[in-house]
Amino acid sequence: MIDAAGNPLAHVPGMPTVTVIGDGQLARMMQTEAIELGQSIRLLAASPDASAAQVAADVVYGDYTDLADLRRAVEGADAVTFDHEHVPTEHLRALIAEGVNVQPGPDALVNAQDKLVMRKRLREIGAPVPPFAAIESVEDAEAFFDAVDGAVCLKARRGGYDGHGVWFPADRAQLRTLVAELLAAGTPLMAEKKVALVRELSAMVARTPSGNVAAWPVVESVQTNGICTEAVSPAPGLSPELGQRARDLAVHVAEELGVTGVLAVELFEFADANGQPDIAVNELAMRPHNTGHWTQDGCVTSQFEQHLRAVLDYPLGSTAPTAPVTVMANVLGGDTDPDMPMGQRMAQVWQRFPHAKIHLYGKPWRAGRKIGHVNVSGDDDTRVRREANLAADYLVHGRWADGFIAA
Amino acid sequence: MIDAAGNPLAHVPGMPTVTVIGDGQLARMMQTEAIELGQSIRLLAASPDASAAQVAADVVYGDYTDLADLRRAVEGADAVTFDHEHVPTEHLRALIAEGVNVQPGPDALVNAQDKLVMRKRLREIGAPVPPFAAIESVEDAEAFFDAVDGAVCLKARRGGYDGHGVWFPADRAQLRTLVAELLAAGTPLMAEKKVALVRELSAMVARTPSGNVAAWPVVESVQTNGICTEAVSPAPGLSPELGQRARDLAVHVAEELGVTGVLAVELFEFADANGQPDIAVNELAMRPHNTGHWTQDGCVTSQFEQHLRAVLDYPLGSTAPTAPVTVMANVLGGDTDPDMPMGQRMAQVWQRFPHAKIHLYGKPWRAGRKIGHVNVSGDDDTRVRREANLAADYLVHGRWADGFIAA
Repeated sequence: MIDAAGNPLAHVPGMPTVTVIGDGQLARMMQTEAIELGQSIRLLAASPDASAAQVAADVVYGDYTDLADLRRAVEGADAVTFDHEHVPTEHLRALIAEGVNVQPGPDALVNAQDKLVMRKRLREIGAPVPPFAAIESVEDAEAFFDAVDGAVCLKARRGGYDGHGVWFPADRAQLRTLVAELLAAGTPLMAEKKVALVRELSAMVARTPSGNVAAWPVVESVQTNGICTEAVSPAPGLSPELGQRARDLAVHVAEELGVTGVLAVELFEFADANGQPDIAVNELAMRPHNTGHWTQDGCVTSQFEQHLRAVLDYPLGSTAPTAPVTVMANVLGGDTDPDMPMGQRMAQVWQRFPHAKIHLYGKPWRAGRKIGHVNVSGDDDTRVRREANLAADYLVHGRWADGFIAA
Repeated sequence: MIDAAGNPLAHVPGMPTVTVIGDGQLARMMQTEAIELGQSIRLLAASPDASAAQVAADVVYGDYTDLADLRRAVEGADAVTFDHEHVPTEHLRALIAEGVNVQPGPDALVNAQDKLVMRKRLREIGAPVPPFAAIESVEDAEAFFDAVDGAVCLKARRGGYDGHGVWFPADRAQLRTLVAELLAAGTPLMAEKKVALVRELSAMVARTPSGNVAAWPVVESVQTNGICTEAVSPAPGLSPELGQRARDLAVHVAEELGVTGVLAVELFEFADANGQPDIAVNELAMRPHNTGHWTQDGCVTSQFEQHLRAVLDYPLGSTAPTAPVTVMANVLGGDTDPDMPMGQRMAQVWQRFPHAKIHLYGKPWRAGRKIGHVNVSGDDDTRVRREANLAADYLVHGRWADGFIAA
């Protein structure tokens, strides 16, 4: 690799190089931590203006579904990892056969790619999941509709994220139409029983190829239209017993599925038959996750550092929090982009909240797009949540939701 | 700017670009924070294997003493700043005349370039400095020797760092020889009275072009052979009164000298005529400083984020500590480099201390070279200092100084 002036791209001698397949904000924030660890990241990116490509020296441009591009990107890397789960497993198997160190491997990753495969596997290992079924015909869908008294959540088996690929049909007729259309379009489907949701939680762990694991405190994940908008650490009011059960479950999943790197286990909290709080797995992500961004400013070891340590089989870092409460609020592009430049919005937020930690991804505005997040730490749940959400909202809209006027 | 494949180097639209003149670890750690702020840094670097150039996308190769190279590096930048103080002030004046936003400006920076200019200026503004004199002849040196009863510290006015350019002549004869040799070699000199040093402190502040200032807690700086090897925050046993005096002094210096960005005021603590602790200024640095590295893991706002905020005239961040004690220990290349690769040394440190925060600069080993640092936070001074120093020492030597054997 050389740059435009013919200079070789340098990685420090004797230190590992990690190839990250992907160019989004997760890869960008891995680069942040790699820099401090004295490592170098190589990216496989789609374009130079991608979030991570803007801030990395060693970038291979290509397509993660193209084996030849993958081969170029992984050459000489000590480990290969991902900022998304969409690399075809057959390509990963080909790379492994060629001696490449892929973390997590395809046998784990397939569970984060295919929602039906994942649920079958979780059921096998005794992990709680809501009732589910493969949907290969309208008849399958109607049978499931009857079995769960109409409480049907229909999901595309692959490719869904942030509320995409998830449908809640209002009745049998809508379900029939939807399933017929989606199957005709070639979308593999599954259905899941809607749970009587109390809230969503997220249990995150990291695991090394040697089998060491470290779990973070369980957080509450607030979803708006299927997109995580807020994460509160620790989850308010969560009993120590249920928190421990959630962490143990995440460790169990990581071990049984052979996950390496960071694993996010998104959980439903619901009331069981006795009205007691219980949990079931919603989704898995095998990479740093939106519900773990709080660790950047609220924990001894951030999920991005931990992911790099894990995929390189280094000992894992302390997951102790550095503040009683840390809240992450997402910055999602609003319906319009305010005239006020983002830099000025940041200035206004910092003027009011000098302790707010703003993280932006180098992404231009688009309605609904995740363009950043804000972390706030403190002693008091209510105040910290309020400040984090006010700050994130200001970055979106360029005005204070509570009517605050700067002195 | 384009890369080797003809792709344009991308900075996100609407966000500021900061050009950093310099390619060392300070620029590298600014890049870390710029990434999270959604900004982009452009570097003026000497070579692609320089510490910061390894991890940045937009790098101009050139010489910081060459005005044409500086012009190429600053084109289109919203602000220009430095990771060292050695850019000729006449070049900075030329850039400013061309409309470039240079922070800090040459009138401030000259005080960090020339030790005699700095001391004269500090005396003018009432900041405490040890007695000093310009040394332009052997006669000047002898007169100063007599005036301070032989307690002479001789300094090169320019270019000294980490103990270089500082001499402690044992007697008059040695002083005469030294001064004659140095003046003959064209080294401008000054002399300062050696203080009865109790310890060294460092008071760090940031200041914006608009005049806002924020001060960090005062730290104790432990020097070994003229190189900072440890920084302890807060300085153990420092009286609140003297701590406040040190912070006020740093703010006063920043304001009077028109410093923007981060300013480190290195201080001598000594006993006054009544045996009471007092302070005097030793050196100034107008950039992030080794004694501020602890802020990366022990403070709400790190010195690198604060420097970027300050030079862009954003509101400054909270300087509240996130732990009762944070200690930084430097990793300096040992007399030889151990056979054990650095990655394995890191693994051993993390195995024993999962909470140790290792920062490496991407620099190959050289005896005495600063190649990284370790931050450890906790409740207890003694334990935290011990752990930070053990960890840093292991990274240097590949063995535990206390004989610890891993289970």
